[in-house]
Amino acid sequence: MNVLVLGGDGFIGSHFVDQAVKWGCAVTVFDRFPYRISNNLEHQRGTIRFVSGEFANRDDVGNALKNQDVVYHFISATSPAASWNDPYIEIEKNLHASIQLFELAGRCGVKKIVFPSSGGTVYGPQGSPVDESALPCPFSPYGITKLTIEHFLRYFQNKDGIAVDIYRIGNAYGPRQPHQNPQGVIGKWMQQILEGTEIQVYGDQSTLRDYVYVKDVVFLMTHSLKDLSISETYNLGSGRGISIIDLLDIFLQTIDGKFVYQIHPRRPLDNASIVLDSSKLLAHFPDFRFQKLEEKIPATWNHFKSRYHA
Amino acid sequence: MNVLVLGGDGFIGSHFVDQAVKWGCAVTVFDRFPYRISNNLEHQRGTIRFVSGEFANRDDVGNALKNQDVVYHFISATSPAASWNDPYIEIEKNLHASIQLFELAGRCGVKKIVFPSSGGTVYGPQGSPVDESALPCPFSPYGITKLTIEHFLRYFQNKDGIAVDIYRIGNAYGPRQPHQNPQGVIGKWMQQILEGTEIQVYGDQSTLRDYVYVKDVVFLMTHSLKDLSISETYNLGSGRGISIIDLLDIFLQTIDGKFVYQIHPRRPLDNASIVLDSSKLLAHFPDFRFQKLEEKIPATWNHFKSRYHA
Repeated sequence: MNVLVLGGDGFIGSHFVDQAVKWGCAVTVFDRFPYRISNNLEHQRGTIRFVSGEFANRDDVGNALKNQDVVYHFISATSPAASWNDPYIEIEKNLHASIQLFELAGRCGVKKIVFPSSGGTVYGPQGSPVDESALPCPFSPYGITKLTIEHFLRYFQNKDGIAVDIYRIGNAYGPRQPHQNPQGVIGKWMQQILEGTEIQVYGDQSTLRDYVYVKDVVFLMTHSLKDLSISETYNLGSGRGISIIDLLDIFLQTIDGKFVYQIHPRRPLDNASIVLDSSKLLAHFPDFRFQKLEEKIPATWNHFKSRYHA
Repeated sequence: MNVLVLGGDGFIGSHFVDQAVKWGCAVTVFDRFPYRISNNLEHQRGTIRFVSGEFANRDDVGNALKNQDVVYHFISATSPAASWNDPYIEIEKNLHASIQLFELAGRCGVKKIVFPSSGGTVYGPQGSPVDESALPCPFSPYGITKLTIEHFLRYFQNKDGIAVDIYRIGNAYGPRQPHQNPQGVIGKWMQQILEGTEIQVYGDQSTLRDYVYVKDVVFLMTHSLKDLSISETYNLGSGRGISIIDLLDIFLQTIDGKFVYQIHPRRPLDNASIVLDSSKLLAHFPDFRFQKLEEKIPATWNHFKSRYHA
């Protein structure tokens, strides 16, 4: 099976590439780093095909799509913080180019598109764990645009007959998170510790998040490879709500070296609380257990330390 | 109260201008026709202020927003049919410029934005009348973009403290519908009759729509003027499901002159069925009754005839 992984050299994308290679897929990675793969995929050199190009460039994307059975679309040019004050970048960098990708995929005979959406932002604040039937109330340009891309995927599914799987993922963390301007609080805090600056904590015991280890994420996303004719939307989170204060405690207990922190009120761009009910997806993985945050925070920390050059 | 009506020279917009003038508002119309108002607003000459400009032009819109209390945003550059095969025009012509409008409105001190969304397309196909708590499943670029604009309005409401009312309107019809390339089946059929071509009927007895007379629409939308601090989302439809075949019968019974018709299966871009439950809005209008389609189709037909020049 030929699998194209857009953004396959990035954080979640590169872990997915590892999984897809294990599955026996012929993997092509499309990413923007010119003419080379990064440390994230160095170990796959010779196993995978690498294509560099610009996601917004119609020809670059069209060429990469040739003879592909499945496309995993991990490219995201923004973060919730980056577009909070500049919603236009969501439209220009993510939405327009994603629509172009889906249109071209249909023309190239791709059988399925898989899209990692954002369980942490498409639903908006929710008091208790939400399943896929909940009414999405995104409140940030980032979350709004993820949901809009989901809707456009259903449009192309309906119009072109292409299958579409959507995974609404919790707060993914783990090795290979970008060590500069990382998205998500775990990476951000680790960066701040390495730089010797204060950890900035926004929120309190009621500010719940659903952290999910990146290797769990990509393992569960291989579900889409089992049947290329099925289309579904799945939540993908641990189902365990961890408050920002609990997370700070885990940092204090598991990370070697000292750091200082400062606690602030939650910012407007932060979701009040979100935990995902992923029963629908997990029904296909009866023996699966999520990795524990207490064990994988140290593994992530080791990655950050190994990549850090002051 | 100063009210800016974007697209105020158009179909629904010009009827709203009539209502706002009745309410005693100081009305400014912003529309693209250069330096003149059209037949739709000729009778308001001297009463209203007219500003021409391009909706996508930041300066044009920014100037029009000065000293306005409320903005009604009736500009739409597309129709469900127009963007079915060209989703990019929704992004370029409607979404981007609408976000710019909302951003500028916040900066100019506007107190409330009122947005006519599309009850006929944001929900997708629904078996029975839907209220505002239903899960929106838009399947056309037109409906997807209306819903995305709704979400961006809530973002600006949250971020800038501006009030926002959204009306999800059924299939509006009535005088002043554009007589060239009209949106909606009633206008389209009337155009076809006037041109002496066959009426093209897509669908069957199960293809239900919620037709609502334009003067009822704008009367109910004045609800937003009563309290500029409240933000809400309202359905705005008659609650009566009329099949496309029933509509054809009403045409056959009420329109003078002969015409021929051809019945086809429903097209992919047509919603299977949608009827709106507008109880939430109607609770504020205890004595209100919707105009009947059987009486207002002839009134609309007279308008089409009066404007038609072969």
